[in-house]
Amino acid sequence: MTSSAPEPEGARPVPPPQRRPGGRSARIRRQVLDAVLAELGEHGYDGLTVDSVAARSGVHRATVYRRWGDVGGLLADVLDAAGDDAWQPPDTGSLEGDLAALNREIQDALVAEPPIVAALIAASFRSEQADHAQRRLWEDRYARCEVIVRRAVERAELPLGTDARRLLIAATAPVYHQLVLLRTPPGPDLPGQAARTAALAASAGAFAVPPPAGDT
Amino acid sequence: MTSSAPEPEGARPVPPPQRRPGGRSARIRRQVLDAVLAELGEHGYDGLTVDSVAARSGVHRATVYRRWGDVGGLLADVLDAAGDDAWQPPDTGSLEGDLAALNREIQDALVAEPPIVAALIAASFRSEQADHAQRRLWEDRYARCEVIVRRAVERAELPLGTDARRLLIAATAPVYHQLVLLRTPPGPDLPGQAARTAALAASAGAFAVPPPAGDT
Repeated sequence: MTSSAPEPEGARPVPPPQRRPGGRSARIRRQVLDAVLAELGEHGYDGLTVDSVAARSGVHRATVYRRWGDVGGLLADVLDAAGDDAWQPPDTGSLEGDLAALNREIQDALVAEPPIVAALIAASFRSEQADHAQRRLWEDRYARCEVIVRRAVERAELPLGTDARRLLIAATAPVYHQLVLLRTPPGPDLPGQAARTAALAASAGAFAVPPPAGDT
Repeated sequence: MTSSAPEPEGARPVPPPQRRPGGRSARIRRQVLDAVLAELGEHGYDGLTVDSVAARSGVHRATVYRRWGDVGGLLADVLDAAGDDAWQPPDTGSLEGDLAALNREIQDALVAEPPIVAALIAASFRSEQADHAQRRLWEDRYARCEVIVRRAVERAELPLGTDARRLLIAATAPVYHQLVLLRTPPGPDLPGQAARTAALAASAGAFAVPPPAGDT
């Protein structure tokens, strides 16, 4: 969900500039967004300024101001870039297995160090632009995850007419609630327990879509 | 949960000062905390300062600084005061009914205007003191809600050895997740659907506590 969250590229070999897609403009974007992630991981939202990002990225500050405007614009672009990937949800062969693997990815992302995903969620309470971008990213991730439910329907694990989004929210919400809001420590059982709860509820018909009004 | 959240007292008739429990110190605390709530509702965390709270409360600013220190101290005391009440979870006669009523209280609190509960949650991402106090409040509320599960066990709706806290988290997490993080609009079906999902999962044994190791 947030699991394919952005990482600074420092840890990966950087291909020669001329090979990077999109040329100079894309290269500048990558440099700046990597600097945002690094600053955010080290200092959190409160330490993030356009000037510190510009200095770290080696991109002229006038360019950063012109293209991203402010910290909110930088964060929104980090989140939009995070959604521009090929992430697909896990495919383990069972509904409960897929949901548990998904929840493990979410837990890993939420407790990762440096706490970039957590810092981006916190920033969404501060910046309207970051808020909108965070919501776009979540919407996109939940939409991609609907394939988990389609596969379970094809395997006859679930009835046709299961509300995929409600099921996915039920499966993932306890992980977010405990780690982001209640701030309880992560646990090895949390991802699987939340997955099992949602799968059991699904088998019991909790996410059945009622037939359209007028049907007999 | 957050439902018995603090309200400014302006809307209620204020009893004569000499009747208020605790005397002058308690009266000053109430004046100051009411001012925090009013400022928070109007201006959010970013508009909250010790000086604006002091001015609004009519309490000398030196007193406010001495007793509460800073904005974090003020917010923490608002949250601690909110937990110092007689709130009990709804008792409707069924597990699903209790959880649905609880979720309606949570949804109402999260979407209330002025958005005091939402602002306190947002503030918990900014201030460590507010964070700790928010967590204490949630822990206290979830502990009080365990009676919902005990009653369901007594009615034989649930087996003995149901993990009350996990059940309560599963029931309430989708409401928090959608309204606080995903920021989807509130809906009349959300509280009941989340309650029904958790109740169905509970009936299917999702929250059964495994027997202690060594039992046969």
